[in-house]
Formats: sequence, structure tokens, C-alpha cells
Amino acid sequence: MIEKLAIIGVGLIGGSVAMALKEEGVVKEVVGCGRGKANLEKAQARGVIDHFTHDVGEAVKGADMVLLAVPLGAMRDTLHAMRGELADNAVVTDAGSVKSSVVDDVKAVFQKMPDFFVPGHPIAGTERSGVEAAFAELYRNRRVILTPLPETSADALNRVDKMWRQCGAEVTHMSVDHHDEVLAATSHLPHMLAFTLVDSLARMKENDEIFRFAAGGFRDFTRIASSNPVMWRDICVANQKSLNGMLTRFANELHELAALLQSGDEEGLLEVFERAKQARDRYVDGINLEQY
Amino acid sequence: MIEKLAIIGVGLIGGSVAMALKEEGVVKEVVGCGRGKANLEKAQARGVIDHFTHDVGEAVKGADMVLLAVPLGAMRDTLHAMRGELADNAVVTDAGSVKSSVVDDVKAVFQKMPDFFVPGHPIAGTERSGVEAAFAELYRNRRVILTPLPETSADALNRVDKMWRQCGAEVTHMSVDHHDEVLAATSHLPHMLAFTLVDSLARMKENDEIFRFAAGGFRDFTRIASSNPVMWRDICVANQKSLNGMLTRFANELHELAALLQSGDEEGLLEVFERAKQARDRYVDGINLEQY
Repeated sequence: MIEKLAIIGVGLIGGSVAMALKEEGVVKEVVGCGRGKANLEKAQARGVIDHFTHDVGEAVKGADMVLLAVPLGAMRDTLHAMRGELADNAVVTDAGSVKSSVVDDVKAVFQKMPDFFVPGHPIAGTERSGVEAAFAELYRNRRVILTPLPETSADALNRVDKMWRQCGAEVTHMSVDHHDEVLAATSHLPHMLAFTLVDSLARMKENDEIFRFAAGGFRDFTRIASSNPVMWRDICVANQKSLNGMLTRFANELHELAALLQSGDEEGLLEVFERAKQARDRYVDGINLEQY
Repeated sequence: MIEKLAIIGVGLIGGSVAMALKEEGVVKEVVGCGRGKANLEKAQARGVIDHFTHDVGEAVKGADMVLLAVPLGAMRDTLHAMRGELADNAVVTDAGSVKSSVVDDVKAVFQKMPDFFVPGHPIAGTERSGVEAAFAELYRNRRVILTPLPETSADALNRVDKMWRQCGAEVTHMSVDHHDEVLAATSHLPHMLAFTLVDSLARMKENDEIFRFAAGGFRDFTRIASSNPVMWRDICVANQKSLNGMLTRFANELHELAALLQSGDEEGLLEVFERAKQARDRYVDGINLEQY
């Protein structure tokens, strides 16, 4: 049982954790913390949180579990604000999309990696954001990755692991670097491609005509280009190293494809497309991935 | 009224045209032509076609409207097979995704651009294929592009235009080259990116793990990588010129993005993402594009 859960950043991600844990009856008290009063009032009215404060230090006082669900760019300031205010038995975890930058922020603020901090990342979300989009089932059958460090205590890891499983998630542990590589490949790179494609077409002459003739496939392909630009700028900067490697790798493979095309290598083209279709059908459609 | 419609290639595209025109009561007789007997029997059983033949010359005999709904790679042989068999009042049109290659095929077979040929491209389709996937509403509120040439007769163009409008489509006329550029941008390039990304990830070490952590956005983004590899090889080869230009342009923009990333230019990154999101929200979500 979590005695007091502090949710720093009560949006889709943080709000859904609170709702899931309340529904399971495994949390006694939830305090929300954020900057926007209207959003926090909405969260309270919906019963997502029991009460709220705009002060991070105030929010974490007496909390045995603290979830940082703020943008990556706000992580360091938030950590600063809770320093010295945490309870002795507090465990702190986060939900950021990049783990190395969060670990850097934690080390910078606490001057070392504290044993109570468990870096985490729920692979879940929708295009919608804000507490009005939150729902208790968001994490059901979704994956959550935890990236404990050698300094992380077994107790802290177990408590965070348990919290996510109580939300219905499947929890996996991996290293910080491995997480950032995997996410660069499956999430950050695709977002860069979608943003770049839409921006590229938007800057072409007669762009409205071009978009007018886009079919359903284009809509699906570019859906992720409607994501929050500030959040994605933060993710790019935070995962710059892994993402750069992926971008370079991908650009090289595009050049190889262009070479196949220019040399009229029909066999070579077919091989790429067949391998891709097989992998997509096998790994993506074969995996239980509902619409988010 | 179309007296006799010959559908060469009775799949999703050709079958849906026949069904739509029959439902409107604007065609008297539909003959289907293809290689697979089982598929043609199914088409007949569903009432999509009235009868069938495997012989293209036989199929077009006496037809006042001929629709070529075969893969781009089969276009030239099909045109050869109908040469000398067409009725005097026949109009021929096609549904290929690239128009310059079809025009080249027509010129090669007929030694000139005949006045009765109207190159066309319905921007519609689903991931499913075959006549069992055909339905009369496929083209409703979808766009069809016709690319008439100087040699095309006004009568032929009007009859094809009318046929597609009777299917519920919105018909636009443009030049062959412009069509191929627009489709390279909105369809062929995105397919290349999706195929290349999935193939690239599939060839990475621990690829099954990578795909396991893919979220809903990845599923949408890569859906088009499940498309038919042979069809896409044909499209690539047929639209090689425009597609190569688009690939080069895109690869350059990826390098620019990588440079922004490496130099830590947060403002520059945000600008790209914001422009893309605005364009996506405005042009794609603002356009009536149902899920196919």
C-alpha cells in the first residue's frame, strides 16, 4: 500500500497512474503538483488527486512514492525543488522518454546517484494530453521499462516495479543506454522522419495541393508529426547521442536504396520490401498493440 | 450509359469500379479479365462481373469502356494483347499509380499516343486486395487524377471523367509529370521511408526486442510497410525519376536535422517540429480523409 503518492505533473501520464492505483485500492492519498491551477482543479474534481499544491517541496513532504511526470526539460528544476524535502522512506521515479538525461539530472542535483531513485519509462500514451485525457486503463498490458543503476536499492526498485504492475503494466528492466538505443530506434527516429517529411512537403511550392492528394496511408504515416513540438525538442536534445547514430544509420540506408533505384536493381528493391513486410507483419501485427 | 465495360484485372480497384457503376445503373454489361480462375469465379458469384475470359483481346471486343487495373509491371503486355481488338468507339483508361510509365507503355505499343487513351489514377485503396475486398463505395469522396495528353480526345476524357464521377469520386486533371511528382511526395517517398525503417530495424541485433518495445505510433507509422512488395517494386521502377529526386531532397533534410541536433540548436529543432505539426493538423487532419 502506498501511503502518500505525490504526482508531479498531473497530465495524461501522471493522472492515469493515480487513477489506476486508486481503482486498485492500493494508494491512500494522492497529492498533485503542477503550475496550472485550472488543470489541477480539474484533476481534483475528477477525483484523480485528493488535493494539490504548486510547490514541489510541499508536495513531496511525507510522500513514500513520488512520480515525476514532467517534461524532460523541466526534470532538473523539479529535482532541485524536492531536494531536502523528501521523506526518509521516499522512493522517487520518473516517466521520461529518455533515461540517460534524467540520470544526469539526478546526479547533478544530488551530487551522486541516490539509492531511492528508479528511472522509468511507460511505453504508453495517446495523442491527447492533459488530465482530461487520463484514464485508469492506459497502462493495461502496456510495457514499462525501468533502468535501475548499481546504486539503486532493491527495495526502491521493487516498490516502483510493483506500482506499475498494479497499474496493469508489464515491467521490464534494462540498462539506461540500452533503453535509449531501443527508444531511439522505435520512437525517436520515426518521429524525426515524420516531422521532417511533413515539414519538407509543407515547404514545397503548391504544398496545399500536395497534401490534398495524400491518401489514408499518408495520414497514418504522419500522425506522429502532430505530436507536441516542445516535448519532442526536449527528447531530441536529451537523447541526442543515440538519436544521431540512428539518423546517420538511416540516412545511409536511404542512400543505399537510392542507389538500388538508380541502378534499376529490381531484385535488390524487392528484397528490401519483402524483408520489411515480413518483419512488420511478424513483429508488429503479431504483437498485441491495440490502438495505443 | 456504358454498353460494355471490360475490367482487365478484377481486384480491389477494378472490382470496386464495376460494383459502383452497377449500383448506379450506368453500365449494361461487365466482362472481367484476369489470369486467376478462382478470383474471376468469385467476382462473378458476387455479381461484380457478368462473365469473364482469360483473353484480353476477347475481353475488349465490343467494349466501349476498357479499364486497365493490372500492376504497372503488366501494363505493356496487356496493352499489346488488346491491340487491334478494340472497338471503334472504345475508350481505354488505367488505374496505375505512376502515369509517365503507363504513357511510355502506351506509346511503345501503339507507336503513338492514341486519342482514345486517358491515363488515370484513383487515390483510393485499402491494405486488403483481391475482388473479395472490393466494395461499391471505395471511391466515394475519393480523388481521381486524370492526366490527359494533347493527343487525348475531348470525348474520351469526358467519358472517363464521367465514369469516375458516377463512382462518387472527385476528378482532377493535371499533367503526367505533375502527377508523378505529387505522388512521389505523398505516397511513394513515405512508403520508401517505412520499408527502409522496418528493414533497418529488422536487421539490427536483438531486433525482436526492439519491436517488442514499439508503441502505437510505430504501428501507424509503419503500417504502409506491410504493403505488397512486388507492387511497390514496380512503382519505384516506374517512377524512378521523381522518386529519386524526392529521396535525395529528403536525405538532405535529414542531414540538416542531424546538424541541428549535433549543434544543440534547440530553436532550430523546435521550428521544424512546429511547422510540421501545424501543416499536419491543418492539411491532413483538416482534410476529409476517413480511415480509407
